[in-house]
Amino acid sequence: MNQESLNQLLTDVRNGNVTIEEALGQLKHFTSKDLGYATIDTHRELRTGYPEVIFGQGKTPEQVAGIVQFMLTRDNNILATRVTEAMYEKVLEVCPDAVYNPMARTIAVRKMDIQPPQTYIAVITAGTSDLPVAEEAAVTAEIFGNRVERVVDVGVAGIHRLYNKLDVVRQARVSVVVAGMEGALPSIVGGLVDKPVIAVPTSVGYGANFGGLSALLGMLTSCASGTCVVPAQCQRTVHEPVRC
Amino acid sequence: MNQESLNQLLTDVRNGNVTIEEALGQLKHFTSKDLGYATIDTHRELRTGYPEVIFGQGKTPEQVAGIVQFMLTRDNNILATRVTEAMYEKVLEVCPDAVYNPMARTIAVRKMDIQPPQTYIAVITAGTSDLPVAEEAAVTAEIFGNRVERVVDVGVAGIHRLYNKLDVVRQARVSVVVAGMEGALPSIVGGLVDKPVIAVPTSVGYGANFGGLSALLGMLTSCASGTCVVPAQCQRTVHEPVRC
Amino acid sequence: MNQESLNQLLTDVRNGNVTIEEALGQLKHFTSKDLGYATIDTHRELRTGYPEVIFGQGKTPEQVAGIVQFMLTRDNNILATRVTEAMYEKVLEVCPDAVYNPMARTIAVRKMDIQPPQTYIAVITAGTSDLPVAEEAAVTAEIFGNRVERVVDVGVAGIHRLYNKLDVVRQARVSVVVAGMEGALPSIVGGLVDKPVIAVPTSVGYGANFGGLSALLGMLTSCASGTCVVPAQCQRTVHEPVRC
Amino acid sequence: MNQESLNQLLTDVRNGNVTIEEALGQLKHFTSKDLGYATIDTHRELRTGYPEVIFGQGKTPEQVAGIVQFMLTRDNNILATRVTEAMYEKVLEVCPDAVYNPMARTIAVRKMDIQPPQTYIAVITAGTSDLPVAEEAAVTAEIFGNRVERVVDVGVAGIHRLYNKLDVVRQARVSVVVAGMEGALPSIVGGLVDKPVIAVPTSVGYGANFGGLSALLGMLTSCASGTCVVPAQCQRTVHEPVRC
Amino acid sequence: MNQESLNQLLTDVRNGNVTIEEALGQLKHFTSKDLGYATIDTHRELRTGYPEVIFGQGKTPEQVAGIVQFMLTRDNNILATRVTEAMYEKVLEVCPDAVYNPMARTIAVRKMDIQPPQTYIAVITAGTSDLPVAEEAAVTAEIFGNRVERVVDVGVAGIHRLYNKLDVVRQARVSVVVAGMEGALPSIVGGLVDKPVIAVPTSVGYGANFGGLSALLGMLTSCASGTCVVPAQCQRTVHEPVRC
Amino acid sequence: MNQESLNQLLTDVRNGNVTIEEALGQLKHFTSKDLGYATIDTHRELRTGYPEVIFGQGKTPEQVAGIVQFMLTRDNNILATRVTEAMYEKVLEVCPDAVYNPMARTIAVRKMDIQPPQTYIAVITAGTSDLPVAEEAAVTAEIFGNRVERVVDVGVAGIHRLYNKLDVVRQARVSVVVAGMEGALPSIVGGLVDKPVIAVPTSVGYGANFGGLSALLGMLTSCASGTCVVPAQCQRTVHEPVRC
Amino acid sequence: MNQESLNQLLTDVRNGNVTIEEALGQLKHFTSKDLGYATIDTHRELRTGYPEVIFGQGKTPEQVAGIVQFMLTRDNNILATRVTEAMYEKVLEVCPDAVYNPMARTIAVRKMDIQPPQTYIAVITAGTSDLPVAEEAAVTAEIFGNRVERVVDVGVAGIHRLYNKLDVVRQARVSVVVAGMEGALPSIVGGLVDKPVIAVPTSVGYGANFGGLSALLGMLTSCASGTCVVPAQCQRTVHEPVRC
Amino acid sequence: MNQESLNQLLTDVRNGNVTIEEALGQLKHFTSKDLGYATIDTHRELRTGYPEVIFGQGKTPEQVAGIVQFMLTRDNNILATRVTEAMYEKVLEVCPDAVYNPMARTIAVRKMDIQPPQTYIAVITAGTSDLPVAEEAAVTAEIFGNRVERVVDVGVAGIHRLYNKLDVVRQARVSVVVAGMEGALPSIVGGLVDKPVIAVPTSVGYGANFGGLSALLGMLTSCASGTCVVPAQCQRTVHEPVRC
Repeated sequence: MNQESLNQLLTDVRNGNVTIEEALGQLKHFTSKDLGYATIDTHRELRTGYPEVIFGQGKTPEQVAGIVQFMLTRDNNILATRVTEAMYEKVLEVCPDAVYNPMARTIAVRKMDIQPPQTYIAVITAGTSDLPVAEEAAVTAEIFGNRVERVVDVGVAGIHRLYNKLDVVRQARVSVVVAGMEGALPSIVGGLVDKPVIAVPTSVGYGANFGGLSALLGMLTSCASGTCVVPAQCQRTVHEPVRC
Repeated sequence: MNQESLNQLLTDVRNGNVTIEEALGQLKHFTSKDLGYATIDTHRELRTGYPEVIFGQGKTPEQVAGIVQFMLTRDNNILATRVTEAMYEKVLEVCPDAVYNPMARTIAVRKMDIQPPQTYIAVITAGTSDLPVAEEAAVTAEIFGNRVERVVDVGVAGIHRLYNKLDVVRQARVSVVVAGMEGALPSIVGGLVDKPVIAVPTSVGYGANFGGLSALLGMLTSCASGTCVVPAQCQRTVHEPVRC
Repeated sequence: MNQESLNQLLTDVRNGNVTIEEALGQLKHFTSKDLGYATIDTHRELRTGYPEVIFGQGKTPEQVAGIVQFMLTRDNNILATRVTEAMYEKVLEVCPDAVYNPMARTIAVRKMDIQPPQTYIAVITAGTSDLPVAEEAAVTAEIFGNRVERVVDVGVAGIHRLYNKLDVVRQARVSVVVAGMEGALPSIVGGLVDKPVIAVPTSVGYGANFGGLSALLGMLTSCASGTCVVPAQCQRTVHEPVRC
Repeated sequence: MNQESLNQLLTDVRNGNVTIEEALGQLKHFTSKDLGYATIDTHRELRTGYPEVIFGQGKTPEQVAGIVQFMLTRDNNILATRVTEAMYEKVLEVCPDAVYNPMARTIAVRKMDIQPPQTYIAVITAGTSDLPVAEEAAVTAEIFGNRVERVVDVGVAGIHRLYNKLDVVRQARVSVVVAGMEGALPSIVGGLVDKPVIAVPTSVGYGANFGGLSALLGMLTSCASGTCVVPAQCQRTVHEPVRC
Repeated sequence: MNQESLNQLLTDVRNGNVTIEEALGQLKHFTSKDLGYATIDTHRELRTGYPEVIFGQGKTPEQVAGIVQFMLTRDNNILATRVTEAMYEKVLEVCPDAVYNPMARTIAVRKMDIQPPQTYIAVITAGTSDLPVAEEAAVTAEIFGNRVERVVDVGVAGIHRLYNKLDVVRQARVSVVVAGMEGALPSIVGGLVDKPVIAVPTSVGYGANFGGLSALLGMLTSCASGTCVVPAQCQRTVHEPVRC
Repeated sequence: MNQESLNQLLTDVRNGNVTIEEALGQLKHFTSKDLGYATIDTHRELRTGYPEVIFGQGKTPEQVAGIVQFMLTRDNNILATRVTEAMYEKVLEVCPDAVYNPMARTIAVRKMDIQPPQTYIAVITAGTSDLPVAEEAAVTAEIFGNRVERVVDVGVAGIHRLYNKLDVVRQARVSVVVAGMEGALPSIVGGLVDKPVIAVPTSVGYGANFGGLSALLGMLTSCASGTCVVPAQCQRTVHEPVRC
Repeated sequence: MNQESLNQLLTDVRNGNVTIEEALGQLKHFTSKDLGYATIDTHRELRTGYPEVIFGQGKTPEQVAGIVQFMLTRDNNILATRVTEAMYEKVLEVCPDAVYNPMARTIAVRKMDIQPPQTYIAVITAGTSDLPVAEEAAVTAEIFGNRVERVVDVGVAGIHRLYNKLDVVRQARVSVVVAGMEGALPSIVGGLVDKPVIAVPTSVGYGANFGGLSALLGMLTSCASGTCVVPAQCQRTVHEPVRC
Repeated sequence: MNQESLNQLLTDVRNGNVTIEEALGQLKHFTSKDLGYATIDTHRELRTGYPEVIFGQGKTPEQVAGIVQFMLTRDNNILATRVTEAMYEKVLEVCPDAVYNPMARTIAVRKMDIQPPQTYIAVITAGTSDLPVAEEAAVTAEIFGNRVERVVDVGVAGIHRLYNKLDVVRQARVSVVVAGMEGALPSIVGGLVDKPVIAVPTSVGYGANFGGLSALLGMLTSCASGTCVVPAQCQRTVHEPVRC
């Protein structure tokens, strides 16, 4: 239910065309859908510009498939993250067009084509081992209509590799920098570009990494401006820079 | 051994009907039962209003079944939490009426019917992935005679979903709010109702959740009044609000 | 603005007695008051049964006094917690009746007498050093109309001291148990009473207390049922049990 | 030294107008200035769009004043954060126009007027106690040419206060949401707007806040999209959204 | 090599019966045995009163068996802790008399009978789930010649169960108290006996147990005197009280 | 009230010489003394062999003095730990014989002479900076009748210093080893003696000490047998080994 | 591309023999090789004296094999750490000479013989369970041309075992000391030798080891000079001392 | 007592020129000096190549002065770290030549001139605020005979500043890199030089620095080879690289 229909509804209430009880009922059902095990936020796109993303972890395959099935009745592209192969098999039963990306652990359904913009997002990894996390970010950005350029394995132990790709990085509208270990790469990138940098820590790393804590803290205390942090794999935020 | 029998015993001691040694012996055996691997607190119901709940984790299936077997000699409903399927199979051998709930990981035996009260407890989850924890809470509340209303997947990313269910929430005698991620939902509920809120953090969540620590800390520092915290899955406390 | 006036307002909208713009304006101003540095939630009592408590920490004395001054225009008792003496001096300028409790670090203004209930809340401390935290809880409970019984210094190193006061504890409607060190006292109380126990950890303690973390964790993992936890000094929750 | 002068320099090297040694020397001195105790990054504006911000903490007043003195020889506005009054007094000796904001702990020198844009940044606080952190963010944004709208004390315990200001929040180009305690406000805002949200945790809070850790973790695990996190007081990032 | 043989050796050096080189050689070989993958401390019994205990974790089955095989050439009882069944099978090949206790995860070889003392050690558990840890402690104490009395499942949720066994506890020379959850039982015991209490935390527990951290911290901050802490499963210390 | 008087009381109850009400009253008052702000455990010595130690931290000087004043009516030596000079001044008003040890932060009152035993406790420090903690331990041990030998500054960076004092250490009945930094000294001592070792971590240390956490964890994971841990300054436990 | 070729290139630019575009291209391709999933730092040896080590963890077997295949085109010895058996099988397809060390979890390819130096590195373990970590260090040191002497199982519980090997330890050019539990061995070694000590913590240990945290912190706060710390298994640093 | 005198002593024992008792006595007194509150390790220089450094923190001014006074009887340069001005004043009374460096918090006494070597140590700071820590490292290195080159404020937000000083850095025998915030600078340096890098974290930093933890963890997980970590201010290790 968008802004206009809300205006209409209130006008109808004033004109007596709609009773207060009816109005309350409509407002209740326009904004969410109760599936029993999930209450889908059908109003989110109006509010935030993007439909809900399905967070697979902790759900049963049946629940994921059920949510996809409901979303198919609407016009948006569908994305599920943190999914397993078992979830994908259930989803296929209700949606044969669903695409599974095992590295990114995503299921995507394209229901409409979004005109790719001229600008792009750079998804940069410090090492090869950071690729799965980066790929989830890239898939998310692409399903919501962004163009993505990937820059791989340019971490600080051989920082000239980043300099070799500096053109690609500097022309990006936004950089998503994925790094484990000490998480230093976003600071470097943040000191070299005049665009926002989204730092994504991963749990990759020798030694005292403590499940990604080192990278997370390193990024949080980054001394470069224009950098903010999104915890590892929380790339739902990644589709946001599109609006900038 | 209840208050009256204790009075009788002391009177008997004064009258010389019971020797001091005998009295000590009776007091010892009335209050607990030694099974070798467990010392069942047979006195707990008198003291706290509810019989002991069997905590399955870390026990062998034989131990769980043995404790159930002993409890069957008494009149109360029986509940075991954190159980495995292997425990359930052993329990079935001594109690064919036992009911296993795999999502809640509970075994329940109904030995008496408790008249359901007019009021109810609202068990509210922030997301679908929080359901298993919520279900353990709901099963626990029900086995001890409460009525439960479930409100599912109304987390803060689409907070209007909670408003759609506000009637159910506000009429509840107590709300149990189960949430992972940042654990913000109990604060919202606590700011909307005039009844106690029991916040239950879960380990669901993208990114820097650290096994539920984020949700736990978020709930502990909640700025809403009337809210207290019970660690994830520790819903034994849930049957308590009944008395309020 | 309460439930009835909301009904009236909607009726007026339907009848055309009130324009939509007027209605929106009224709804905006009935529920909060903007002081520039604070937005007072004037609607909270209707929603949760209690007016807002002023959280002093981090505010300037001028801000605390300004909020008190506004609240004096209303009928409720006023409570500020975590206050300093400097705050009290500023408050005195606008409210000579304000009462300062330096141990509890509270400022209270009694604007109405609440009929004390027959039941009471037991505020129990493990040690003498836990008294300041306990006193904040007791003052909070009393300002909102509760009767409080204090049980002091009955920690687990000499647990018979608790047994000596067991009558007082068991007849309480709710027990607030304040303890530092290992935080074990709430577990003991929770195992002895059939009423809710609110555990409040403090930072008192020898050795590896880590600023109260030991007591907090100890209470969170308590094996007694009917116990929930409110972080040290967060006694705003304490006035809640009144409703039970 | 900008892109063009670099091109010129390399051409001069090829033409033999500049020796390699000279070229190396020029590149060295164009990009930074060595003050002995500091190496000022005079090249940062070319690279990232903004001049260096002086981070006061841990520096002596003499060092802060010396850095300001050097920066006065250039055309940009100057900002120092985390300063003390003693630093301000030393800075006044070299720059009588410097403005000290004790709440924000900043020193600012306006050397040029930046045309304020039509859009604005919303700086939102959960409570009055979060104002100092918010003010540092607002001052930073303003010194770099942004317009700022402040929304104060609209935390989740009375979330209708946020709804009352929803127009201001939704029309902002970017929202900076400052909150302590459980850090839930950014999630709520992120679920209501279609613009980026920058979450800034503070150490305000009762109980188990652990120096802001609760708010930080709560924000990091936020389940709302479009939200990213900048640690408390690290508002240097705040001037970045301007570019979006 | 004991005290007397050392005296003899030095006398021999003075008399010239033994060269300095020979003496150095003897001292080197009398005190340890190099197996390539292990350097067995053959001197430990002289120094500390007890032979080395084999710590199985992280060793290969071949290494454990090899160490047992060497130890069989000496006269002491042999104990290996933290062993797996695979280790036991390898040990059986070199020592058919070895006894495996799967609950305690120990392998024991009795080579001599130690006259059991009149006094005993009480090994007390808070719950049934703490039994494996307690059993490792009991097995260790017994293999080194102690008598052990077990007191099972007497945790603080029903503290009268401990009182029922108070005679057994108070007559013990030392109490080893094994508890998970909030770790409160050792404090209670320490407040009731006039003998040392060794607190052993376990990772048993609902909710915010954090792998036993709650119990560990609870015990470390115990307010009862006479209590000290040995981390879970570190019961090698348990044989020590024998000497008291 | 000791064992005999308890027997007498029960006999009197049986004989009718004492009513049940009287018996309950006597039992209540014999075991503790309520001072309003403190409930002194007058029964502790009977139970644990030692009277209560006053824990000064968090108490007011008046409270400390009041507790001392009450204790003066009894025959035991009195000890208060974690005291300030202000507390001492108040105590002097009620007890001119009180002795203040500023390094150990203790107040001691000797009311009876305990015959010093032939054996002694070794209090060993790793460094000079560990002396205050060690001194609290030594004072505590002495006030309860032990003889103490001090071994100072023999930490692992020059471990031969410990060997030089090995005679003193090995002849001690118990060793209390106080160390900061990495907390390695207790492990070394534990590997050299056949008596119990009580490890006491302190917060002394360069670098990543984290308030003593390094030393605490180091000691908790000590690979030497016969070693247990008491958190820094928790030396109340120290008087316990006397009984061994 | 080494120092000389860089000089040549710049001279060619000045002479006009090489255009600026060509020069930029050469610099780009001489220093790294893009494999799509990895950007190999072909310039690292020139910069740091050693070629890149392949960090296996988080890579697919195909990626590891692909990187090895590229490296075979160059002259250096190849080392991959943190590898699995599946990785080894893929590597064998492209390099039949590869040698797999399952204990050290390494794959090594010797392409050139390095003349072993006269000096050696001592790799010392506190216990047998520390061998896998130590072996990774030793293999790394050897593949880069060092001689290694192993000293096994000489931990602090029987410190004379270290003294027995003191000659080997003191003559080493550098000591790598691998220890779990409390991590005390490097402090001891650091106090006995006049050469650098590299402390490597492992996660071996009873009780409160917290995944190696105890050993790590213990080593970081070591009070011995000349000691620095490399997190467990991060032995890539180990080849560095060769240069000392 | 050096190697030769030990040989002589043993020969004297064999010849009967020295009794065993005498020999034991000599060994005891040659290696340490007992001052009552300190046991000075007079043997350390023989063992590790450097005399003991006085760690001021936690000592009284009298103790520091007493230790200096004793050390003056020997020939080495004297260094005390972590000192206060009060300590310096006491030291001046026994040693008027002592030099106090308030930024580095050191007291130094030069008793001999050490021929400065041709090589040098580079002490590099990421920011101006890291200077005090760096200065302690530099003073320590210099008092033990090293030449130091300082490189200031070249952190990763403007990494070209480091490149401008790359010659100085690359020619250093060892680099000590001092950084707070995310601690990324040592990784960068480690990727650019072929000499050891000693990373020293500081607690400087905006936001989620947690007292230097971010920098410490960042350095510990550094992905650059040849880098090891010494906790902040633990620069006693810094004199060690001299030997490399």
